[in-house]
Amino acid sequence: MSSGIIKRLTSSDATFDAQLSALLAWEEGTHEQVESVVKGVLADVRKRGDEAVLEYTHKFDKLAAGSMSQLVYGQERLQQALANISEQDRTALQAAADRIASYHKHQLQESWRYTDEMGNQLGQKVTPMDRVGVYAPGGKAAYPSSVLMAAVTAKVAGVPDVALVTPTPAGQVNELVLAAAAIAGVDSMYTIGGAQAVAALAYGTQTIPKVDKIVGPGNVYVAEAKRAVFGTVDIDMIAGPSEILIISDGTADPDWLAMDLFSQAEHDEDAQAILISPDQAHLDAVQASIEKLLPTLARNEIATISLQKRGALIAVGSLSEAVEVSNRIAPEHLELAVADPEALVDDIRHAGAIFMGVSTSEALGDYCAGPNHVLPTSGTARFSSPLGVYDFQKRSSIIYCSKNGASQLGKVASHLARAESLEAHARSAEYRIID
Amino acid sequence: MSSGIIKRLTSSDATFDAQLSALLAWEEGTHEQVESVVKGVLADVRKRGDEAVLEYTHKFDKLAAGSMSQLVYGQERLQQALANISEQDRTALQAAADRIASYHKHQLQESWRYTDEMGNQLGQKVTPMDRVGVYAPGGKAAYPSSVLMAAVTAKVAGVPDVALVTPTPAGQVNELVLAAAAIAGVDSMYTIGGAQAVAALAYGTQTIPKVDKIVGPGNVYVAEAKRAVFGTVDIDMIAGPSEILIISDGTADPDWLAMDLFSQAEHDEDAQAILISPDQAHLDAVQASIEKLLPTLARNEIATISLQKRGALIAVGSLSEAVEVSNRIAPEHLELAVADPEALVDDIRHAGAIFMGVSTSEALGDYCAGPNHVLPTSGTARFSSPLGVYDFQKRSSIIYCSKNGASQLGKVASHLARAESLEAHARSAEYRIID
Repeated sequence: MSSGIIKRLTSSDATFDAQLSALLAWEEGTHEQVESVVKGVLADVRKRGDEAVLEYTHKFDKLAAGSMSQLVYGQERLQQALANISEQDRTALQAAADRIASYHKHQLQESWRYTDEMGNQLGQKVTPMDRVGVYAPGGKAAYPSSVLMAAVTAKVAGVPDVALVTPTPAGQVNELVLAAAAIAGVDSMYTIGGAQAVAALAYGTQTIPKVDKIVGPGNVYVAEAKRAVFGTVDIDMIAGPSEILIISDGTADPDWLAMDLFSQAEHDEDAQAILISPDQAHLDAVQASIEKLLPTLARNEIATISLQKRGALIAVGSLSEAVEVSNRIAPEHLELAVADPEALVDDIRHAGAIFMGVSTSEALGDYCAGPNHVLPTSGTARFSSPLGVYDFQKRSSIIYCSKNGASQLGKVASHLARAESLEAHARSAEYRIID
Repeated sequence: MSSGIIKRLTSSDATFDAQLSALLAWEEGTHEQVESVVKGVLADVRKRGDEAVLEYTHKFDKLAAGSMSQLVYGQERLQQALANISEQDRTALQAAADRIASYHKHQLQESWRYTDEMGNQLGQKVTPMDRVGVYAPGGKAAYPSSVLMAAVTAKVAGVPDVALVTPTPAGQVNELVLAAAAIAGVDSMYTIGGAQAVAALAYGTQTIPKVDKIVGPGNVYVAEAKRAVFGTVDIDMIAGPSEILIISDGTADPDWLAMDLFSQAEHDEDAQAILISPDQAHLDAVQASIEKLLPTLARNEIATISLQKRGALIAVGSLSEAVEVSNRIAPEHLELAVADPEALVDDIRHAGAIFMGVSTSEALGDYCAGPNHVLPTSGTARFSSPLGVYDFQKRSSIIYCSKNGASQLGKVASHLARAESLEAHARSAEYRIID
């Protein structure tokens, strides 16, 4: 059965595995033209610095500036935006920022040391990065919430210098983005975007100091530029389209679940919204809600294409089978819309964020629950984590040997080094042997 | 003054900054030929699986196998290697493995939750990856210690399935590598290498299941293949040449320090060994030790080229200036060969591993102190960490709202979602508002 709006799959079908694979299939196409443009921009900014950034900003963002100083927004300008937005906007942004900071403080890692039985001290020293760059898209996809998620987290990690870059196409500034930057404590801001902004952050220019890590979403040029500078600086993951997976036992209002699916599908035409349930009648009810509510959405055209192309309602035999399917998908957002989410959560192995119980809609997590909304997409939750404080801290091993410890360890090291034909390693260790 | 063997720099020179930049300059050349070969191999293995792996193994490793089963080494073969190596080898490998496990257990992250003032539960669920692939080079650069560093760490993280790939060129097997795999608890082993091994791990074949992360060093083909599959799977960093930086106050025996420098320089001709001291006479003494000891090294040709090309003895005005220079370099290995290393360590912001005091030579850390010897190179300690348990665990955010909490958060989320023109997000949140 198919409504035309959303696929219906059944896990007991002989072809279910293949159908699910086809549904999940997602691969960023290789854009040779994008690669070649980005390569040129990166090399040019690396060589000519500010001058090249100004030229590309004029060319791509239709913003003519005589000097880089016109593209630098000082603290006064950020504070002015914060003062000028509505009281309600300011309160909501501040509430979200406070909750994000409060949650992320739990992720702070401390340095540690211990002493072993030989009297050697071993440990790990944790330090923040010196300088981080946050990319925020401009124009219609300018999301102040994303600025909070990245910049507040970096600040909680203790990064002393957080730079924000955001394009202002044709000079169009988003005051909420500036206000979010002010609340987050962003240290410097540049109204540049695209591959030229990534290049400026990665290599540094006369005006813009080089950063250690670049985070934040962007268009295909930004994504390709981030991929290309990876290694010179660190980057967060290259995000694919956003996804939600809902496991429902039928206890939630079908209208709620339909709207939760839409909250993903309205993002873009490639977004993915899937609901799994062992209850066929419930799946029918959710489908009816989808059909009823979809036409009432402001972004119903985008949501309709997303649901038709990549959405699905999946019937399974049991909730534990739903968990199995979920682990295979490794979703970015997982809603456990069930009466007893604790009974399922231990068996969830891979998910970016887990929304427990029918009250916890994904939208709450997107804005203000506290955890990060920058999450691993396209099954990468198998090996990656939400953006977090750990993305902005790094570790140094500490080894402090006692004379006796160095002597004992020296014997083992010497033996292994000689087995690997590394004689200087062995002799360096042997100097420390005292008996 | 220059001995011809190693450069002498002085931080008070007007051109010091430029000289240091030139000394540190390192960029992996772009090998268009390598890129193109790797692209072909990856696509071919992805398409044809085992058959392609067998062909490339025959072609590149001169190893003819009729079927993949000949390239699979079972537990019996690993245990046989462990039984057949010498008692001394076995004891040394086991001692190193035990210490690596003991240190890395301190890095285990636990899941956590807390309840906020609205009655919402927030937290982070930590889970190991399902399956990890360890690459170990074959032939003369086959290092059993690297197998321990990667595989023991993955096992401490709780990864149930650790696969080892290592080429056996012309059938030449390194029994110590197999024995290290046995000790580390490697679950499956394949005698394949190069880009074809990386492809098999990243995409899976009929015989080899797909992994979630690939770690371990390799030649330029392996490095390029890892870079290319990044995103499909996670990878560790692409390693540059190894480096040591020694800060010395003149209290250590110059012969010891010369040998510590050699223990880096003997790795390869691009390795970098630098010593910094405020004591000119001490620098002269270290130089004399270098000249005296270098000819006695088995690998003196490699070490000589490394020291000539990339080595340096740097005179600074004070130990705190030495720390500043060190932070600029962000070395892979940092020896604080000083009487009071605790006085310096707090100011060290960027380093892969810090070796405190004159007894603690880098070689001890390379084999058996406990911390990992896979460390960030080429200044990437500015933003990355030693290989660790955290590389094999990932996190899922947990959000479990109370009805009251969902209602309160719903108001904030609704406001911000409407400000971002995401109406379905807003309506999904609004359903949860109860007053």
